[in-house]
Amino acid sequence: MSDELLKPLLRRDPIVGRWVISGRVDKNWTPEELKKFVEKHEKTGKNCPFCPGNEKMTPPEIMADRPQGGHPDTPGWRVRVVPNKYPALKIEGDLDKRGIGLYDMSNGIGAHEVIIETPDHFSEFADMSVDQIQKVIVAYKTRCLDLKKDPRFKYLLIFKNYGKVAGASLEHPHSQLIALPIVPKRVREELKGAHRYFDYRDRCIFCDIIQQELYDRIRIVADNANFLAIAPFVSRFPFEIWILPYNHSSDFSEIEGDEIADLAQILKESLYRLKMALDDPPYNFIIHSAPVGDSNSEYYHWHIEIMPKIIKVAGFEWGSGFYINPTPPELATEYLKAVEYK
Amino acid sequence: MSDELLKPLLRRDPIVGRWVISGRVDKNWTPEELKKFVEKHEKTGKNCPFCPGNEKMTPPEIMADRPQGGHPDTPGWRVRVVPNKYPALKIEGDLDKRGIGLYDMSNGIGAHEVIIETPDHFSEFADMSVDQIQKVIVAYKTRCLDLKKDPRFKYLLIFKNYGKVAGASLEHPHSQLIALPIVPKRVREELKGAHRYFDYRDRCIFCDIIQQELYDRIRIVADNANFLAIAPFVSRFPFEIWILPYNHSSDFSEIEGDEIADLAQILKESLYRLKMALDDPPYNFIIHSAPVGDSNSEYYHWHIEIMPKIIKVAGFEWGSGFYINPTPPELATEYLKAVEYK
Repeated sequence: MSDELLKPLLRRDPIVGRWVISGRVDKNWTPEELKKFVEKHEKTGKNCPFCPGNEKMTPPEIMADRPQGGHPDTPGWRVRVVPNKYPALKIEGDLDKRGIGLYDMSNGIGAHEVIIETPDHFSEFADMSVDQIQKVIVAYKTRCLDLKKDPRFKYLLIFKNYGKVAGASLEHPHSQLIALPIVPKRVREELKGAHRYFDYRDRCIFCDIIQQELYDRIRIVADNANFLAIAPFVSRFPFEIWILPYNHSSDFSEIEGDEIADLAQILKESLYRLKMALDDPPYNFIIHSAPVGDSNSEYYHWHIEIMPKIIKVAGFEWGSGFYINPTPPELATEYLKAVEYK
Repeated sequence: MSDELLKPLLRRDPIVGRWVISGRVDKNWTPEELKKFVEKHEKTGKNCPFCPGNEKMTPPEIMADRPQGGHPDTPGWRVRVVPNKYPALKIEGDLDKRGIGLYDMSNGIGAHEVIIETPDHFSEFADMSVDQIQKVIVAYKTRCLDLKKDPRFKYLLIFKNYGKVAGASLEHPHSQLIALPIVPKRVREELKGAHRYFDYRDRCIFCDIIQQELYDRIRIVADNANFLAIAPFVSRFPFEIWILPYNHSSDFSEIEGDEIADLAQILKESLYRLKMALDDPPYNFIIHSAPVGDSNSEYYHWHIEIMPKIIKVAGFEWGSGFYINPTPPELATEYLKAVEYK
């Protein structure tokens, strides 16, 4: 590894132009330093609305994987999707953009769903079977394809908050899907950055990042036939991981066949390595995909960003969009690779 | 107050175009709901490098307010500025931007200073005398004027992290100043948004916001002869507060005379109202000012943004730049105004 990359550096994200301070002047942070910040989250498993037998505690289910059949909202499911009981947006109504003096506003319409990933309260992606994770991915895809039919929705955001620090309010394994009536700002910025690169080079920047990483080979965390997991060159957070499909595709919901199994495998491996390297840290992951109606774009490439939430994001980051990451991604990769996996 | 604003709404920030979901479908969150999330931070006052008598525990001081004179790095100061012992950036070297394959990088040069706000370990802005806060503001200004002389620095960022959740690693009252060799992305976006408005209307958008708020009178938290404190129409966080000077000025470091005393007063009042309304929540504040060399701009207006850190920022916000704020700013204002002050 180039020693230069372990020195404190400003690194600039080629996609959105974000700058990150990578490494520390005094000492890069290793897992030992970082583990001091990991807050424990003991699971109690009590009164859980997502556990089998408590199906009536959630709103009526939208879909479920029931290998033996059976009635909705009863046990026997392996993955279950329900509306969020306390949604951020409501499903009825129209987007009626209007002004109020200087300001702009609209009704808060959208869908907010919860994907219950397993009946087992104490399981997690890092420990689940690849087969079970596949079922979760199929549920993500199925819900996307359904919500895309609603012309009011412009963006589908799938994400997971793991651990209280990362914002999870319920401990039973679950992810969330929010359908939005607008394309959010940070997504538009990412698209714009990728578009600018495509205009200049006539190539997809994510495809180029994959090539660069396969050439450098110092930030690869895991790989298989269809996917590459890397510690991105401009990691904002210690031990950040991105998962990219080798095949160019802008739309996550077009995933199929072997890709589904391979995504399940690499997601499990990445989260397992993270769990072992850092003592089960809280994290968020987000599926970055093209807006609805903008699929088949040549310049955008769907991917997953996993962000461990170990150190607090402080005033500095909020005020500037300028991050401080005390662990260079090349160092994080070494620790992640050192974890024994299978 | 217009009832419409208490309903769940999408609100669009007129400056940077950020969308925020304001309010909840089920129930807006009041201080009672929010207080459940406030993590306590008991101060111990032990082994504090910022306490009088421990001056040798910090790097040599850069400046200090010593009314009786006396030697540097000894007691007798009222405000003291020292280099950060573990800086994010180092002061020596040049910004040597260069490429590495697809990526861009540079040396991490810059200044990282700590402003120790008072000798009293257990004091805070909410409880300090206005006179003491004035001395802190004068220290901010003095350091800005000095650092501006270094041609390598393009942006000066002053911020405070209060409480562990907000990222404070030491409990003794302090703020930080980081001098950056580039203008960070989020600052550039804010400038661009303000510039676009100016191009269209030939007016400063912040001056217009002040007029709008003085007309609406439902989001004013505090005011005095020179400053207005509001709960912004597009609050990203519950109980967010912005402090704006009435006089148009793009550069914080040009503050002088009565403005310094009035800023101290409104900062104290705002933080006191926040502390009382929410049971001493953690917060960050950031001074938003024009880049070095870009002062006297007609379109930008310096201001302070105070962001209480009560609810966790989860995967959704990170992935989208789309925030969910369960407490509409009009409701937050009611609670902040209900606090008895003086």
